[in-house]
Amino acid sequence: MTGDFVVMPPDLPAPAGPFSPEEQAAVYRAIFSRRDVRSQFTQRPLDDSTLMRLLTAAHHAPSVGFMQPWNFVVIRDLAVKARVQQAFAAANAEAETMFPEHRRPLYSSLKLEGITQAPVNLCITCDRTRGGAVVLGRTHAPEMDLYSTVCAVQNLWLAARAEGIGVGWVSIFHQKDLCQILNLPDHVVPVAYLCLGHVDELYSSPELQAKGWAERLSLQDLIYHDGWGQGAA
Amino acid sequence: MTGDFVVMPPDLPAPAGPFSPEEQAAVYRAIFSRRDVRSQFTQRPLDDSTLMRLLTAAHHAPSVGFMQPWNFVVIRDLAVKARVQQAFAAANAEAETMFPEHRRPLYSSLKLEGITQAPVNLCITCDRTRGGAVVLGRTHAPEMDLYSTVCAVQNLWLAARAEGIGVGWVSIFHQKDLCQILNLPDHVVPVAYLCLGHVDELYSSPELQAKGWAERLSLQDLIYHDGWGQGAA
Repeated sequence: MTGDFVVMPPDLPAPAGPFSPEEQAAVYRAIFSRRDVRSQFTQRPLDDSTLMRLLTAAHHAPSVGFMQPWNFVVIRDLAVKARVQQAFAAANAEAETMFPEHRRPLYSSLKLEGITQAPVNLCITCDRTRGGAVVLGRTHAPEMDLYSTVCAVQNLWLAARAEGIGVGWVSIFHQKDLCQILNLPDHVVPVAYLCLGHVDELYSSPELQAKGWAERLSLQDLIYHDGWGQGAA
Repeated sequence: MTGDFVVMPPDLPAPAGPFSPEEQAAVYRAIFSRRDVRSQFTQRPLDDSTLMRLLTAAHHAPSVGFMQPWNFVVIRDLAVKARVQQAFAAANAEAETMFPEHRRPLYSSLKLEGITQAPVNLCITCDRTRGGAVVLGRTHAPEMDLYSTVCAVQNLWLAARAEGIGVGWVSIFHQKDLCQILNLPDHVVPVAYLCLGHVDELYSSPELQAKGWAERLSLQDLIYHDGWGQGAA
């Protein structure tokens, strides 16, 4: 074969099976007790070794064609955080006016970010050019690199829960503001702006549910079989 | 206050902190040993209670504005799987021609799906209209519902690893083919088409790495501080 890649002898598959009941319970505990944190950050600093474990978890997300399109912009600088907080505040003022009048008092009472309160902010980005012009698995679905980056976010979020670190995803921004503040190149998309810090307590249900904004849907109603709208055979 | 929502007394936050070292290890084990499975599915059926646990994990993903935009189309019907496999094969034949000539032999040697081999296929969709015209947190970032749905995929993937269930994400489709086969309405996007089944063994590194398609990037090279391209202060 010619070219810069050769077929390597594949790793032999390793034995794999279900985790122990205790390990399974830990994974489900992370999944079910993870929260989107806005108000519970303590002022305890987030040390570098913990942060590196979280970023390593993110870096082991699945990615289309093993593209690994993510970068991690770690923000501790107070001036940068302040600019991001201002960008949020401007967008959120616009957002409030979009809701029906009867919902605005509750909307405006909700705390939707902990940008300056959290010791660390983290922007996880997607480099849409990484891996070259043609990426395996992305030939027919160009959005797959963005989706891979979201998988990295969720890996980090669950690892953070296990470490006692709260994570809040702030999405009320004009994207161009974030790009400008963080000096992102044109080919790089800010997928997630996250606030991170130690937490001592968390809501026992999603905060928007606890505060009466929305209810959890019935899972059973969301399941179809073999085609949209179809029940089990 | 008027309207159909009232401010409920919030749940009191519950104590939360780091998991035990054993629990943390279990969460990281799921993250680091999760694989994108194409070839390792056994023929052991996937029982309904296990599948429901996986779907429950997915349903507890974070979602913008607690929108929960996902549906789960569970596919066991052999005729539906066969049509999906044909849609994949047609797209994959197109995909192969897009790669530089020297990479095609390796590309065509890779098995990129287990659609008919896996006992269960699962399409996780995003209903872009759920939650009404204005969704909290989505006012400035309309893609957030798609990203929420990807978080559900990753929750399911990690829960599946803990249960000994392999998951493979197949993305080489013309989206319109999937929509047609599964009869999806126009406002519903197929975010992920997954193959699920019991596995006894998994690659110890990502299969595309094991087979010489791509290398893992250095995490350190992907981290910036306070702005794109900047090292630590």
